[in-house]
Amino acid sequence: MTTSRRPIDAESVTAWDLEADVVIAGYGIAGVCAAIEAARAGAEVLVLERAGGWGGAAAASGGWIYLGGGTGLQRSLGFEDTAENMEKFMSAALGPGVDEAKIHDYAHGSTEHYDWLVDCGVVFKEEFWGEPGWEVPHDEGLGYSGGENAAPFNTLAQPAPRGHVPQMADKQTGVRGAGYMLMKPLVETAETLGVRGEFDIRAHTLISDAQGRVCGVQARRFGQDLTVRARRGVVLATGSFAYNAEMIATYAPRLIGRPAAAVEEHDGAGILMAQAAGAGLAHMDATEVAFFGDPQMMARGILVNGRGQRFIAEDTYGGRIGQAALIQQDNAVFLVMDMDSHEEALGTETSTPYFRQPPTWAAETVEELESDMGLPAGALTSTVETYNRHAADGDDPLLHKKQQWVRPLTGPVAAWDMRGFTAGFTLGGLRTDVDSRVLHVDGAPIPGLFAAGRCTSGVCAGGYASGTSLGDGSFFGRRAGISAAT
Amino acid sequence: MTTSRRPIDAESVTAWDLEADVVIAGYGIAGVCAAIEAARAGAEVLVLERAGGWGGAAAASGGWIYLGGGTGLQRSLGFEDTAENMEKFMSAALGPGVDEAKIHDYAHGSTEHYDWLVDCGVVFKEEFWGEPGWEVPHDEGLGYSGGENAAPFNTLAQPAPRGHVPQMADKQTGVRGAGYMLMKPLVETAETLGVRGEFDIRAHTLISDAQGRVCGVQARRFGQDLTVRARRGVVLATGSFAYNAEMIATYAPRLIGRPAAAVEEHDGAGILMAQAAGAGLAHMDATEVAFFGDPQMMARGILVNGRGQRFIAEDTYGGRIGQAALIQQDNAVFLVMDMDSHEEALGTETSTPYFRQPPTWAAETVEELESDMGLPAGALTSTVETYNRHAADGDDPLLHKKQQWVRPLTGPVAAWDMRGFTAGFTLGGLRTDVDSRVLHVDGAPIPGLFAAGRCTSGVCAGGYASGTSLGDGSFFGRRAGISAAT
Repeated sequence: MTTSRRPIDAESVTAWDLEADVVIAGYGIAGVCAAIEAARAGAEVLVLERAGGWGGAAAASGGWIYLGGGTGLQRSLGFEDTAENMEKFMSAALGPGVDEAKIHDYAHGSTEHYDWLVDCGVVFKEEFWGEPGWEVPHDEGLGYSGGENAAPFNTLAQPAPRGHVPQMADKQTGVRGAGYMLMKPLVETAETLGVRGEFDIRAHTLISDAQGRVCGVQARRFGQDLTVRARRGVVLATGSFAYNAEMIATYAPRLIGRPAAAVEEHDGAGILMAQAAGAGLAHMDATEVAFFGDPQMMARGILVNGRGQRFIAEDTYGGRIGQAALIQQDNAVFLVMDMDSHEEALGTETSTPYFRQPPTWAAETVEELESDMGLPAGALTSTVETYNRHAADGDDPLLHKKQQWVRPLTGPVAAWDMRGFTAGFTLGGLRTDVDSRVLHVDGAPIPGLFAAGRCTSGVCAGGYASGTSLGDGSFFGRRAGISAAT
Repeated sequence: MTTSRRPIDAESVTAWDLEADVVIAGYGIAGVCAAIEAARAGAEVLVLERAGGWGGAAAASGGWIYLGGGTGLQRSLGFEDTAENMEKFMSAALGPGVDEAKIHDYAHGSTEHYDWLVDCGVVFKEEFWGEPGWEVPHDEGLGYSGGENAAPFNTLAQPAPRGHVPQMADKQTGVRGAGYMLMKPLVETAETLGVRGEFDIRAHTLISDAQGRVCGVQARRFGQDLTVRARRGVVLATGSFAYNAEMIATYAPRLIGRPAAAVEEHDGAGILMAQAAGAGLAHMDATEVAFFGDPQMMARGILVNGRGQRFIAEDTYGGRIGQAALIQQDNAVFLVMDMDSHEEALGTETSTPYFRQPPTWAAETVEELESDMGLPAGALTSTVETYNRHAADGDDPLLHKKQQWVRPLTGPVAAWDMRGFTAGFTLGGLRTDVDSRVLHVDGAPIPGLFAAGRCTSGVCAGGYASGTSLGDGSFFGRRAGISAAT
């Protein structure tokens, strides 16, 4: 078996074990969307999947997909949105350093992309879920997913919910998560179009001709190397590098030991094999960061860092709290609440019991709590005093938490030690253009090579909103399929 | 002229315009050290420099070079240090994600490296400078350079000054900065050894043979492509990508529009040409970040972020303040001082007039100042109250500024708006091993290709200390020269 990733010279290939017009590595969200579009463009399509079945990280995920600009679901639920508005939010929230061309195309193509998904059989239930929370508690189809309706974005762009969630299957057919229910109709669509899937086979190395055009891949199945010919193009859709410890240490060390929302197959293979052909990279340090706290509690309390200082509007998207915690607060976060607010949070129908933890410290006064937490005298009490001073008027001039969640902390108080409550997946990867062509470091596309999904750098540079990963994986996956087939 | 960076097949080269055993691209600190060692190992050495003369960013720099473990200079000035102690500090301060093997070799080879520099003619004046400040005010040879003697590092490792500064030339010979005085004796040493320099010529593309071994470079001079044969090896020492706007946007977007301490020649060329041969990268988001404030003032005042909160021990290294400001505080920093401390700072012999700015706001009380600054009522006053409460006892339990700088703010106060006072250069680049071999993405060295200096990822992953860039550039530059020659 080869261990090198260096592209193999096609002239050295004596026989092809498998062959198709378009060969796609990875049968997750990007791969299936590429397959559908390539097949519709008239190509014979072969998908190579290293796991025993289709799905990838998408099928195991919460299924959120970021769509807007006035999708059918948004309109039917009474939400106004425009592509410009969506573009404005994405540019502000997903940077710094976003790929503006990708965000432009993504935002302006979003309603069409929604229709395409629905045509493929993805079902979005016409129900909105507006409470702070961790994903949706039932099978609602729409929710806020990136802090659109919280500070600072609620004054930068008109808030609109853009987290579209495929309806989970009911109990009669077996409970199936939204990610699975996104992938299933797409795979069925692909199969109807004649797309062939080969499983337990992992692409390892590109094969290219004398002119540098990628014309196949070498792949491994049960310890054997196979050669796979791609008459028109190769699409890499192999997922992130969240489970490649060496790449994490090298590019995104804050995530060392904290992988999440990815599958172990995400070993960066697609990135490495394209890099070996001279492909450029982008935003390799960018990471989604989840924060495992109960949003119903966080919105009602205050979050403080290791110095007892507030740092974020507590009613924003959990992914923003996670990024702020890991990158800006050295992973030290404490939740402080009074008992009344705590009881209220626990009493909400949509609170998230999974994330409830007993308090680490409880005290009669903030002074006592501060001392119990080992904070210097005045560190937390001054934070609470300033918060309470304005909360009495329903204001939060420091961080602009929405009025509905602002209330002075009174009576007995408690704090939860949330240090290290973060985990995430990687957002950086291959540099591609809006047609999903993989770009060489000299700026020109590498002939015959296309990529989408988390082995590429997509619409997110530094920030994140739930659904942007399945979103750009599917959107630019389709483009990869079209480009590869034509 | 070619625009592609794709390696050129040596078989297509009909004639070589220039030739040597070892060809080095870039005549800055890494290049000159590689040249000396390659020549001493018996190689014929040719250095290609795109500017009109030697020097690179090093000659224009402050010349600090990070050395320790008990160098001659440290010992003669009465400072104890060990390699283990140095390694401990570097691992803590330069991460997360540091290359432990590189730091180990660097720390344990540091006293030998000091002797080597001195043998080459670099002069370090036996004088220590211990005041907070921006580089050294005169021609002192040793100072703290990375926050070794400030929190949190002063309790993690025994503090020792490791910033070694070559003595500047005096007025009789023309004032010459320490960076120039580092480079000059090294270039003279190289020339004595027969190293040849060619100027106004920029390496653009690697040339490699059928087995993938790098055997030369294509370079440009006055619009013409030249072929340069390297019989033994090519060393890339072309500097950072601080002045490549596209690479900054793609890898380190926080530095957009903020390049500093680099020269315009730092366009990432060496990184790109090696990437095109399949080289891996590391820590592309890592950046040195300078903060243009007067250390004598900052140590005596308090630094607060856009929410009026303290976030760093104000007596630490300015580069740490810069990184914290840009990455963790969204580039929003304000300096708050009382008038007594301000006068004291201005009166010190070693204050830095260049960085003095008139206050943006001045007021009789902190309440007024807070209001003038547009901060919410209580935001700054509570910060000052908590600071003063402990400062009365000479303590700073929140951030552990050293006792000598801790004093309650009293009487009239002023604040300086220091938003956007940051600029920096990039620390990420090619992945190399401790022998300065450029590593392919598959992990194996690329035969014939070596690199050092800021086109590589060195001892810094996320953090920085002044002198580590000239430090690892010279240290691993030497290794590149030895590896390439043998």
